[in-house]
Amino acid sequence: MRKRILNIAMIGSGFMGKAHSNAFRQVAHFFDVPYDPCLKVVCGRNREKLESCAAQWGWEEIATDWQTAVHREDIDVVDVAVPNALHAPIATAAARTGKVVLCEKPLATSLEEAENMAAVARQVPNLVWFNYRRIPAVAFARQLIDEGRLGQVFHYRGIYLNQSGNDPRKTTGWRYARSEAGMGAAGDLLSHCIDLALYLNGPIAELTAMTHTFAPGRDVDDAALFMARFANGSIGSFEATRYGVGCQNRNTFEINGSKGMLQFNLDDMNRLAFYDATEAPNTRASRAITVTGPDHPYWQNFWKPAHPIGYEHTFIATLGDFLTAVAKKEAFHANFDDGVEVQRILEAVAKSAAAGTWVQTVPALR
Amino acid sequence: MRKRILNIAMIGSGFMGKAHSNAFRQVAHFFDVPYDPCLKVVCGRNREKLESCAAQWGWEEIATDWQTAVHREDIDVVDVAVPNALHAPIATAAARTGKVVLCEKPLATSLEEAENMAAVARQVPNLVWFNYRRIPAVAFARQLIDEGRLGQVFHYRGIYLNQSGNDPRKTTGWRYARSEAGMGAAGDLLSHCIDLALYLNGPIAELTAMTHTFAPGRDVDDAALFMARFANGSIGSFEATRYGVGCQNRNTFEINGSKGMLQFNLDDMNRLAFYDATEAPNTRASRAITVTGPDHPYWQNFWKPAHPIGYEHTFIATLGDFLTAVAKKEAFHANFDDGVEVQRILEAVAKSAAAGTWVQTVPALR
Amino acid sequence: MRKRILNIAMIGSGFMGKAHSNAFRQVAHFFDVPYDPCLKVVCGRNREKLESCAAQWGWEEIATDWQTAVHREDIDVVDVAVPNALHAPIATAAARTGKVVLCEKPLATSLEEAENMAAVARQVPNLVWFNYRRIPAVAFARQLIDEGRLGQVFHYRGIYLNQSGNDPRKTTGWRYARSEAGMGAAGDLLSHCIDLALYLNGPIAELTAMTHTFAPGRDVDDAALFMARFANGSIGSFEATRYGVGCQNRNTFEINGSKGMLQFNLDDMNRLAFYDATEAPNTRASRAITVTGPDHPYWQNFWKPAHPIGYEHTFIATLGDFLTAVAKKEAFHANFDDGVEVQRILEAVAKSAAAGTWVQTVPALR
Amino acid sequence: MRKRILNIAMIGSGFMGKAHSNAFRQVAHFFDVPYDPCLKVVCGRNREKLESCAAQWGWEEIATDWQTAVHREDIDVVDVAVPNALHAPIATAAARTGKVVLCEKPLATSLEEAENMAAVARQVPNLVWFNYRRIPAVAFARQLIDEGRLGQVFHYRGIYLNQSGNDPRKTTGWRYARSEAGMGAAGDLLSHCIDLALYLNGPIAELTAMTHTFAPGRDVDDAALFMARFANGSIGSFEATRYGVGCQNRNTFEINGSKGMLQFNLDDMNRLAFYDATEAPNTRASRAITVTGPDHPYWQNFWKPAHPIGYEHTFIATLGDFLTAVAKKEAFHANFDDGVEVQRILEAVAKSAAAGTWVQTVPALR
Repeated sequence: MRKRILNIAMIGSGFMGKAHSNAFRQVAHFFDVPYDPCLKVVCGRNREKLESCAAQWGWEEIATDWQTAVHREDIDVVDVAVPNALHAPIATAAARTGKVVLCEKPLATSLEEAENMAAVARQVPNLVWFNYRRIPAVAFARQLIDEGRLGQVFHYRGIYLNQSGNDPRKTTGWRYARSEAGMGAAGDLLSHCIDLALYLNGPIAELTAMTHTFAPGRDVDDAALFMARFANGSIGSFEATRYGVGCQNRNTFEINGSKGMLQFNLDDMNRLAFYDATEAPNTRASRAITVTGPDHPYWQNFWKPAHPIGYEHTFIATLGDFLTAVAKKEAFHANFDDGVEVQRILEAVAKSAAAGTWVQTVPALR
Repeated sequence: MRKRILNIAMIGSGFMGKAHSNAFRQVAHFFDVPYDPCLKVVCGRNREKLESCAAQWGWEEIATDWQTAVHREDIDVVDVAVPNALHAPIATAAARTGKVVLCEKPLATSLEEAENMAAVARQVPNLVWFNYRRIPAVAFARQLIDEGRLGQVFHYRGIYLNQSGNDPRKTTGWRYARSEAGMGAAGDLLSHCIDLALYLNGPIAELTAMTHTFAPGRDVDDAALFMARFANGSIGSFEATRYGVGCQNRNTFEINGSKGMLQFNLDDMNRLAFYDATEAPNTRASRAITVTGPDHPYWQNFWKPAHPIGYEHTFIATLGDFLTAVAKKEAFHANFDDGVEVQRILEAVAKSAAAGTWVQTVPALR
Repeated sequence: MRKRILNIAMIGSGFMGKAHSNAFRQVAHFFDVPYDPCLKVVCGRNREKLESCAAQWGWEEIATDWQTAVHREDIDVVDVAVPNALHAPIATAAARTGKVVLCEKPLATSLEEAENMAAVARQVPNLVWFNYRRIPAVAFARQLIDEGRLGQVFHYRGIYLNQSGNDPRKTTGWRYARSEAGMGAAGDLLSHCIDLALYLNGPIAELTAMTHTFAPGRDVDDAALFMARFANGSIGSFEATRYGVGCQNRNTFEINGSKGMLQFNLDDMNRLAFYDATEAPNTRASRAITVTGPDHPYWQNFWKPAHPIGYEHTFIATLGDFLTAVAKKEAFHANFDDGVEVQRILEAVAKSAAAGTWVQTVPALR
Repeated sequence: MRKRILNIAMIGSGFMGKAHSNAFRQVAHFFDVPYDPCLKVVCGRNREKLESCAAQWGWEEIATDWQTAVHREDIDVVDVAVPNALHAPIATAAARTGKVVLCEKPLATSLEEAENMAAVARQVPNLVWFNYRRIPAVAFARQLIDEGRLGQVFHYRGIYLNQSGNDPRKTTGWRYARSEAGMGAAGDLLSHCIDLALYLNGPIAELTAMTHTFAPGRDVDDAALFMARFANGSIGSFEATRYGVGCQNRNTFEINGSKGMLQFNLDDMNRLAFYDATEAPNTRASRAITVTGPDHPYWQNFWKPAHPIGYEHTFIATLGDFLTAVAKKEAFHANFDDGVEVQRILEAVAKSAAAGTWVQTVPALR
């Protein structure tokens, strides 16, 4: 079977650009997709970085003008991997020209912006890079929940701690400027927690939040916390911070239900802890399942059972599922509408933190 | 040296009565105290349980009338180990007669009640059984903090999860009745988190809380959560629940500071995790210190290094330190005034949860 | 019911003397035994240490002549807690006078000595302090094995690592002198591994061993290792060392069978890891069971589920089971005959290490 | 800079063929090597599997005759990823024609065969795929050892446990036939332990071994164990088994030295536990270092610190280092001579197991 060539224009060549480049290179090695991604052009502001990125990953061309790249007729897919404030103009322009649009998270810098983006992007296949949904352990958590293995959910905890803010060398980039990032830890880290919560535990009905900036003079939040009530009656507790000294990349969730518990930690991404409360009392205990097969999500895509995958595979699996869905004309998540729902919660977090009160977060009807 | 005999009257013969009886029996074996506790009389409502308790632990007498016991001239110490609503009358009566007073936690069922108790108890040596302060790992955490090993504190997390509420067989006792317990998970579990937080991180300035009752018809909280700002500028996140399915006795704290991190979990009570951010980057990592010596709190009281102690030793160490302080006429904590501070936060939690707003929790000047 | 008073003479007042004293004091608090141990006399060579021990634990008398103590008519029980070379004369004398005899491990300094001791001791109730059999997690492992949860056993690993030998301050005691200890790490540590292996996996048929002394001039082994074949067809791997730097008290076993795996580590003594190979592949994983109840060995003797016990409770449980067995005239293990079986393996280890060949270890018929 | 194209012929298209294909595809994305690998031809016996492999990874051609492929003038590199018994003829033929030769482990099915292979291969750049040396945590262990952080080594333990043998569905492949594999668990698993031991702790002087086959009728070992003395005076303990039920891919080493301890487990491959015995006693404890940077081996090749890599990256790093060494005409390890040293130990294991005695394993002088 001949595969259709997909010409990619990637806007941005930073760390996400590297992760996406690798995904484009690797997706067809691990997923049986009817497309052959062609790394056509990488766009950015810094020519030297672009040349280095192109040399490393084999991008055919470089360009410093994203608008031209987005409007090229030979381009099929536009991948947006730039600072948050640029997501909207690029993704919207790309969607308007009928390109397939992939966008980094958080989708936007405000709820209104996100909604406008989604309104346009709905016309084309679209994706938000909430890559952690495709960690096999996370997808397996969702499967166990769908099978009813947790029963009625009581508690959901989503926490993302790193220590980037405590390191003065790392605090001058765009992630620390409101004009470019929109938010601080909330957009960068908490958005991941929120997306996983919505994916695993459904809509959030209301919340009360606090944010804090530890560094003098910084205009984005260093930490953002909130307590919530989910539509399913469970209680949520969330925290994200760049001052979690001792934690490099601790993105965790924990769910207690009437029939069991699930625990995940990105620092140990090939495992999922599962406590089955229906077992005999004397052998009932949390078990650390190595989610590399057999019978786990993606176990036939990558290596053999017990051969761990790493960070980059979350992007490969996201892209693999997306291209499969595009080929089959099936729905794909997380898409721009999912990105809007995360933005709705982020906006409520900001609003609640400013007002010191609870805020309703009624999800949109779609 | 002859030891002075201390005649004890213990009010209550439940699980705490067992833990206290053991502490009275064992304290002189592990601590060099100038007293010889004599288990004089155990009081309660149920004669059969009293006889069983007396037979097991060697209480000389049993009594069903606590007032007579408390007023006996031969009694030196009154130990209050009954449901919360009875703490105030018994402890107050005992203090008024000049007895040494020991009281289970939470001190009271309201802030006002607690303050009244403390006002009376200040006249005599007094103790609140916040036993977890005396876990060697917890005391060592305090020592490291006092030495400045954490630097400026950014985040404090205190969480106590058990699953008692999800077990219908266990939910009919006094702990589930407002008239006897005052509160639910808040008084039972969250009070421990609050005491440790005040002990380790100082006063809480303000908080916003939520509480929830999962079980229909129950009149106490099953879960209580709050977010806080500490007086030292750090941010706190707290949760206690009886619906933490999968967790039997998970009482944890975690502190991130500019120079390091500490983590403790009661499920692994002989260990303290310490991350020292001042070390060389390539060998910097959290270390799970077995806090059984050498050079750890209480390491010469119990067994040799690497020979773990258990739950009961927290009571023994509390009593050992208390009797030592009494002998030396030194201050002891946690005392009734410390119990008041915990009650102040519990009251703010209830108030904030009802109002849905932030509440100031300015600590009392003493 | 009136309890019978048991007058104890304890020979030795070192670390084991402390552990035994505590067991005598505590056994009736946790076990429903028809005896009331009376700490009559503690014997030893150093009067100052004896007085300190007596003061701390309430021994009524001290004595420096064990022979007189052992022959006193008012003594019911002789407890031997002295260096290994003295086990035989004291235990034998005590058994000959009809006393109940308790003896520290290893039972003797040679197989012949052990067999002679057992021949005499069989006339009276007797016990060897292989206390780790009574760790709830270990007793539960035995229960799971007896229930067939492991299926056919393939592999048994028993390892005991500490770092005492690497610490020059600790190497001058009797444990480092052949004349007093008989062996080094083999008697001190490996004997525990062997006893647990025989208890959990049955007789050893043959073995090949190596021993090594790292410290110049020391006349006992610092490390002892062997490979073995068990009578049940499984393969064993054993190691004990005092040069396991980084390990304070790591006494572990691990068993792989056709239906599952068990893992235990004394450093985490309230837990047992169990892998059930008969479960569904995608949720099959090792689970760390907290063996504090419900439905676990000793869970009703000590505290509530999830309230950990410590090192000392292994001695209390050993004594509790022993006194119960004595009262019911039932068999008790580990007794002197069990001590002989451990000695048989230790002797084979020494013989094999010297010869560099495999040695048969056919267990005695009893 | 133009890169030189390297035409690859890969012999074998099984699991290792997949891992190698990925390494050829990815090496230039993560390592700055002056070569551009071209996946020219994949050879094997099964045309259908070859077509599938070629389609997945982009091999330009397939071939069922390895001899023709090996002798093609346009081929620069021959990669041998076939059952062990075929390593010698293919690798030798390739080396004789002057090709760069890469060979899977174990190098051969006998010491003599391995020595003959090495004699020929020394004429060309050559590599044995002992990929676990390139796990960052393992390479970092070597670095710490080289820096003297362990002091004098006392104990080395190398264990590789999986459960493949206990699964009847998996036991019919070439790995279970002596004619194709030469050995069972010894060649498959123990060879990895031996290579790491020689890499980390130097030559083995003597050993005594046992092997066992649990499955009736199977002609290779299911388990192989040995005890050893290293040339540096330390003691070794080794075990490999396919009946380690409960363990999927547990390849561990543990080293105790006078100044510290190291522990590694392939099941947690991004971490290395390090105990530094020179630290203050009260904060001395094993720390689980996440070896993903900063300042760790390969941390600038893959992702950012705390972004884990997986199984496949061990092959990429091996190839990256090899191509770098080839370009710089520097020595590379593990090469065929290193493969010989592993084979020397494997042969001694077989010999000792058969004879039941210790065997000298004096390393060859080179």
